[in-house]
Amino acid sequence: MNKKKEDSPLDVLKDFGSRLMVEIQRGVFPSISFPDRGTDNIRFDSDLGRFTLGNATITRDSSNLKHIRSFAQLVWVASFVKQLLESGRTSSLRDLYYSAEAYDVEFKNQAESDRIITDLECVTGLAREDFAIYSEEHSSIFGQLVMRYTVPGYEDKTVNLTMSPDGLPIGPALMTAEPVSSDARCILAVESGGIFSRLIETRAWDRFGCILVHLGGQPPRSTRRLMRKLCVHLDLPLFIFTDGDPWGMHIAQVIISGSANAAHISELTVPSAKWIGITPEDITHYSLPSEDMKNVDLKRLDELTRDIRYADETWQKHIHRFRELRKKAEQQSFSKYGVDFVVDTYLPDKLNI
Amino acid sequence: MNKKKEDSPLDVLKDFGSRLMVEIQRGVFPSISFPDRGTDNIRFDSDLGRFTLGNATITRDSSNLKHIRSFAQLVWVASFVKQLLESGRTSSLRDLYYSAEAYDVEFKNQAESDRIITDLECVTGLAREDFAIYSEEHSSIFGQLVMRYTVPGYEDKTVNLTMSPDGLPIGPALMTAEPVSSDARCILAVESGGIFSRLIETRAWDRFGCILVHLGGQPPRSTRRLMRKLCVHLDLPLFIFTDGDPWGMHIAQVIISGSANAAHISELTVPSAKWIGITPEDITHYSLPSEDMKNVDLKRLDELTRDIRYADETWQKHIHRFRELRKKAEQQSFSKYGVDFVVDTYLPDKLNI
Repeated sequence: MNKKKEDSPLDVLKDFGSRLMVEIQRGVFPSISFPDRGTDNIRFDSDLGRFTLGNATITRDSSNLKHIRSFAQLVWVASFVKQLLESGRTSSLRDLYYSAEAYDVEFKNQAESDRIITDLECVTGLAREDFAIYSEEHSSIFGQLVMRYTVPGYEDKTVNLTMSPDGLPIGPALMTAEPVSSDARCILAVESGGIFSRLIETRAWDRFGCILVHLGGQPPRSTRRLMRKLCVHLDLPLFIFTDGDPWGMHIAQVIISGSANAAHISELTVPSAKWIGITPEDITHYSLPSEDMKNVDLKRLDELTRDIRYADETWQKHIHRFRELRKKAEQQSFSKYGVDFVVDTYLPDKLNI
Repeated sequence: MNKKKEDSPLDVLKDFGSRLMVEIQRGVFPSISFPDRGTDNIRFDSDLGRFTLGNATITRDSSNLKHIRSFAQLVWVASFVKQLLESGRTSSLRDLYYSAEAYDVEFKNQAESDRIITDLECVTGLAREDFAIYSEEHSSIFGQLVMRYTVPGYEDKTVNLTMSPDGLPIGPALMTAEPVSSDARCILAVESGGIFSRLIETRAWDRFGCILVHLGGQPPRSTRRLMRKLCVHLDLPLFIFTDGDPWGMHIAQVIISGSANAAHISELTVPSAKWIGITPEDITHYSLPSEDMKNVDLKRLDELTRDIRYADETWQKHIHRFRELRKKAEQQSFSKYGVDFVVDTYLPDKLNI
């Protein structure tokens, strides 16, 4: 089942339901086929710079006793999110899990309902955010960007994202808002909240002409979707600034190339995004306060060496140098040179401003 | 050293510095005395409904070799936060730790710098948020409330907190903003982000006339400060809605009565706040999907029985009934009855609306 570009998520769900209905009315046991997302069917497409699924499909056949449970769960999830969309509601993954009880649909645990939601993503080619299903964590955003909000139950309005000097959470309302205009020349995504605050209070966003995103560790998928949307609609480059360790580097990598378990979602990655550090060279060059890498850090570097997303020479060099240095440094370690150093010196160096 | 009501944090810091200078100019080794916050000097004041410190004090004497390190650290922290306030900057606890290196002041680890910041709170009678030192975590807020922001580097402005339908983070800017006006009749603080979103998208805040706060587990101190400020300035009652387990109950308790390690901070608690559930009775009454309590939950109940903050009969009854029931339930378990049940039935029951 492939969505057409112009179809709304609600249209896609209705098509899905109609197809099942037609089969039932014909006296046929309905079945559902969708791309298999098992490891064997996931490949890395170097041209696209992201994971995709191969041609293998799996089928849930309602005439097969072993399939009935997951078939019914999948149809229920589709019907639940259709109601959500029709009533202008959103739901967390957890809410959906509990909501099933109202319909006597059984999930062993939330892991099972999460998996069925992913099945529906594969069936429809859409992401759960299109179905108003969100995780509870939110990143934040701030900058010279006007978004138009269309939230059911509220008047449509445009909001300038410099409005709140603490930033705005990237929640369901902002996720469904549309960019109207922006003076920004780039997007700067930062790992730590301390740096995000510093960039706002020094008006560095104004000086650098950037929209700021606070990732807060590995960001929720909705944050990656929003960054991609802004990059595409506003044609802006994206720079990612993280701690100087394998974990920070991988936060950037997932934004750039995505992850295997979201191989079925096409509009999530930003292949042109750039990791600006803290690189191992930065730790040496700026004599940053650093800590010795622990075994878990070194093991992580080994894993990354073998990771297809790090096949590129530049990435391999970063890994190699981290391994030689055996040190890691946090973004906030720049405060060694005064709290504004990161804004006055490091970022202009890196952004060539 | 006692602050006078009208003194600004900057005045308090200047007084502190001047006193040390005077002693030095007199040729005396300066010393600093402040309330001891050791366990023996912490008591629970039943009238105030919160912890306070007794009369014991400790002294850091610069003529004593053993005191010199912590004396110097304390004076450096005071001078660092004075610069922060003068330059209109904020700092995270982590930033402060790293900033010390620039001045050749040594902290073994962040735990040590955090402790010295608490010492400065004891010395001055102010909270670190008054000195622009924040933790990185933020809760969110939403509702019919207009706040006036005065952020250095930005034009003063008033913001209506219904402006962003995802809520606003309770960050440094909002923490220093002042309430201007509100139509709200109460504040409703909720533990989970799912419930917070639901209350916004159903316009329940409008129906209940409430300002919503998303706690996200045990909230940061700045969130408790803001809730207290709003309760006091706007004369609003505060209701706290958490998961039905010892941990949720304790989130409410800390908002109401504070914690022993903040016994030196007076303006943090809301003794009139009310925990509205999920109580053990609610789990039974609403037949909520629940889980068996684990050993760690039962052990926590034992601790709470002996906790002075739970001395009151009503709290003891809650603990007793949890122990009988041996079940716990999450806020989102109400979705068993449909995603709007919590808004249409449970909260009106509890808030008597």
